[in-house]
Amino acid sequence: MQRVSTSPDGTRYDLPNAAADEQEIKLLKEITAQQRSMGRKIVAVQGLGFVGAVMAAVVADAVDKDGKPIYFVHGVQRPSTRSYWKVPVINEGITPVEAEDPEIPEIFSRTVKQKGTLRATWQEHAFSLADIVVVDIQLDATKPVFGNAAKGYVETGAFEKAITVLGQNIDPETLVLIETTVPPGTCQHIAKPILAREFEKRGIDIEKHPPRIAHSYERVMPGRNYVSSIRDFWRTYSGVDKTCEEMAREFLTNVLNTEKFPLYCLGNTNASEIAKTMENSFRASNIALIHEWALFAEDVGVNLFEVVKSIRVRPTHRNMMNPGFGVGGYCLTKDPVLAHWASMNIFGRRMGLDMAVGAVDVNDLMPLHTLDLTKQALGGTLEGKKVCLLGASYLNDVGDTRHSPSETFWKTLVKEGAIPSVHDPLVKVWPEIPEARVHKDLFGFLNGADAVIFAVGHKEYLELEPTEVVRVTGKIPAIIDAQNLLIDEKIKEYLRLGCEVKGVGKGHISTLKAETQS
Amino acid sequence: MQRVSTSPDGTRYDLPNAAADEQEIKLLKEITAQQRSMGRKIVAVQGLGFVGAVMAAVVADAVDKDGKPIYFVHGVQRPSTRSYWKVPVINEGITPVEAEDPEIPEIFSRTVKQKGTLRATWQEHAFSLADIVVVDIQLDATKPVFGNAAKGYVETGAFEKAITVLGQNIDPETLVLIETTVPPGTCQHIAKPILAREFEKRGIDIEKHPPRIAHSYERVMPGRNYVSSIRDFWRTYSGVDKTCEEMAREFLTNVLNTEKFPLYCLGNTNASEIAKTMENSFRASNIALIHEWALFAEDVGVNLFEVVKSIRVRPTHRNMMNPGFGVGGYCLTKDPVLAHWASMNIFGRRMGLDMAVGAVDVNDLMPLHTLDLTKQALGGTLEGKKVCLLGASYLNDVGDTRHSPSETFWKTLVKEGAIPSVHDPLVKVWPEIPEARVHKDLFGFLNGADAVIFAVGHKEYLELEPTEVVRVTGKIPAIIDAQNLLIDEKIKEYLRLGCEVKGVGKGHISTLKAETQS
Repeated sequence: MQRVSTSPDGTRYDLPNAAADEQEIKLLKEITAQQRSMGRKIVAVQGLGFVGAVMAAVVADAVDKDGKPIYFVHGVQRPSTRSYWKVPVINEGITPVEAEDPEIPEIFSRTVKQKGTLRATWQEHAFSLADIVVVDIQLDATKPVFGNAAKGYVETGAFEKAITVLGQNIDPETLVLIETTVPPGTCQHIAKPILAREFEKRGIDIEKHPPRIAHSYERVMPGRNYVSSIRDFWRTYSGVDKTCEEMAREFLTNVLNTEKFPLYCLGNTNASEIAKTMENSFRASNIALIHEWALFAEDVGVNLFEVVKSIRVRPTHRNMMNPGFGVGGYCLTKDPVLAHWASMNIFGRRMGLDMAVGAVDVNDLMPLHTLDLTKQALGGTLEGKKVCLLGASYLNDVGDTRHSPSETFWKTLVKEGAIPSVHDPLVKVWPEIPEARVHKDLFGFLNGADAVIFAVGHKEYLELEPTEVVRVTGKIPAIIDAQNLLIDEKIKEYLRLGCEVKGVGKGHISTLKAETQS
Repeated sequence: MQRVSTSPDGTRYDLPNAAADEQEIKLLKEITAQQRSMGRKIVAVQGLGFVGAVMAAVVADAVDKDGKPIYFVHGVQRPSTRSYWKVPVINEGITPVEAEDPEIPEIFSRTVKQKGTLRATWQEHAFSLADIVVVDIQLDATKPVFGNAAKGYVETGAFEKAITVLGQNIDPETLVLIETTVPPGTCQHIAKPILAREFEKRGIDIEKHPPRIAHSYERVMPGRNYVSSIRDFWRTYSGVDKTCEEMAREFLTNVLNTEKFPLYCLGNTNASEIAKTMENSFRASNIALIHEWALFAEDVGVNLFEVVKSIRVRPTHRNMMNPGFGVGGYCLTKDPVLAHWASMNIFGRRMGLDMAVGAVDVNDLMPLHTLDLTKQALGGTLEGKKVCLLGASYLNDVGDTRHSPSETFWKTLVKEGAIPSVHDPLVKVWPEIPEARVHKDLFGFLNGADAVIFAVGHKEYLELEPTEVVRVTGKIPAIIDAQNLLIDEKIKEYLRLGCEVKGVGKGHISTLKAETQS
């Protein structure tokens, strides 16, 4: 058994042993007592992932009207080889999360070093010391059949185990605030029975001490406003009863910018769990809806981006989405599956959320259309062709690669015998495709390209000049614009240079071609 | 052959005979010459339906910077028994369109009587006198299989005939501005070849005089701002070439409030035709998306209206739709079918717009869910039950019944052996179900009701008090809220009175029931 956890910068941390555990428990008690003596309440955040780590820092950063910290936070991360390193890293005041937001390093340094209100630990004992536990552990949906999200399922084992740990440790008065995006019904039908069972094992009278559970969901956005998107944005919450609802309201009001972004209370936890998954299903569906129109537009000489722009002037249609390369990230690709699965497996309904998972299918398959365009531009086959992919992440100017459409694109390229190559200024390693070397030298990378795929709108790619691209490839490459990254003037220039150019939703390229030839 | 056209108020008008035709042509020439001598340009509007009649009045109402009328308008309506009456009615300065907008009668009286800039005629000769013809004739989609919009088709014969008439009459310099919602591709692939063919028959050199066609679409909304929704709202346009584009721009700028609502020009007519159908497909889809969540919410005790409200605080999700009774009207029920059909039948693509027509199916079938709720509330059968439907129109406080969900609901009630009855304060006759007597006396209507369906949000229904409803039925009726018309307090009152209450998307009624019983 490996007993070492390695941080992204390569530092190796030994996992704690039994002696360290004992010492840590003692320390946790001391720290907690000291913090309580300062009038602070104690919060434990379970799970220090993308959201949990930042949420822990935001809670630790909260102050009362006199500017005094309200909470001391134990950030709790299991001592796994994959993630234990976060504990010592955070305790040095360093962010465990890579992000483009300058506030991220600041808030960890401030809360850990200056305010002394945040400390990370691996020890579950921290839960027993908390007034509030915020649950931010991961809960994934598995889609075993590509393009058939209706077959997706949720493996709740790890989540149930995490809640069991809480039930074994927490004071029965402690509020468990679940922020993980969960299948609707989870608070009522999974978390509550587990806590009740564990309380009873501990001899707690659950009539007198019913488990205190609330639900609230963030709307975090990766990018330059990461922290703010957690703290300064509307949040919906609910409780399993009025007491829990009120405890959640008080906590969220203390921690978030609720003056500017008022809280929204829903009638029960099913409702707010549904809200989260429905909200993201709506977004995923709105993207999916556009795809068939993109194909239509390409076939009939229409620039769909202009069409969308023209429709968006109408206030009720302002959020119409553009066509593109695909949909990535952690939420839009899975939340509809959570709801679909919950409908049948938690609530025992015969029907799921068919339109929502149908949208996931359209979105998951979307990168294959860019692949088709590439194939067409290369004369019908990808075999042996060097295809240079500009962007591995799923969002402009963000280094997050989770479920990025580039992943699907890459894997299919390999299947079809192409020689794929990838560049991304913001991605160091591509965890989903570890064998891919993520190039950093753009011009070297493009050398010998048969096709260049404009997949992600990183700033660097927007600035590329056609003459330069053609020069550094040393060929006349096919140019595929999957995300409307090329303005018409650039497309014309590529056409004049002899390139085959295709673009998702850009049927007007045929007109531009005629213009350059006349 | 019937030679009489009867107006809605029962006045009978003889259809014009050959002598009248001759006289009318002479008159048209005289009027036109006189109007031209006043410096006015001549516009003919083809089709005086819901949109055409009002558009004709808006054009006739347009003035230049000195307040002088810019155009004289010939409103042209074919002399059919169904519609000829509009010609003499308009020429008396009376609106042919029933609407809740007080500006409607005013604008007809003003343009016909005061300004003398609008005159209706049945005579196609008017087209030959016009500088611009605005096409506003009807073009319907037929959905032969209920719940399978993919089988829908467009019968273009009447439209083609109308364009042929233009080709036989217009000056080749005349701009034909098509405002009818058409299957994408219609301007290029239907209208243009027809005009070219007819021009050639007339010996016109179509190389020198290519048919002048432009496309622009309105976003008319029935209700209290009918006229304004045509005149004071963003409009998109396009032309088959730059000259036509410019002619359309000039005309629309003269006629519409483009200072506040700038025009949007798209690159070709396919693009703006797609924009119209895509815009409405987006709306139709966004309604359809919510339906499966409504069913989910009902099953798991959630009030989906509150959930939607909570999500709508997010600016990108502000247009999320509420669940409800169904979708009616002329646009959302057919425009996706136009695009789907055009994709395969005008452009010869193998694929249509599957998601868009799928949304139409969900929406078309939606009223059957309210029927299910009614059946459940009545103990499993509708046989012999008196079901009182509050509302025949498709929109709150509007009398328009076209494709209203009430129609589907009524027809299915009949099939299932119920005794349906309908009330609507704004609907005089229900053209789609002529055998239905539309009641006006609300209390008499409700007498003996086994179920009362709150289907349309007319003001009158919002004011109904539960005690009154139960009293006048003389029974304990089931109450079905298909459109969130009942606040929780009213639902509780119905429950206290012993009514079974169900509502689309209102799963929390079970909680309200428990509260009234405790």
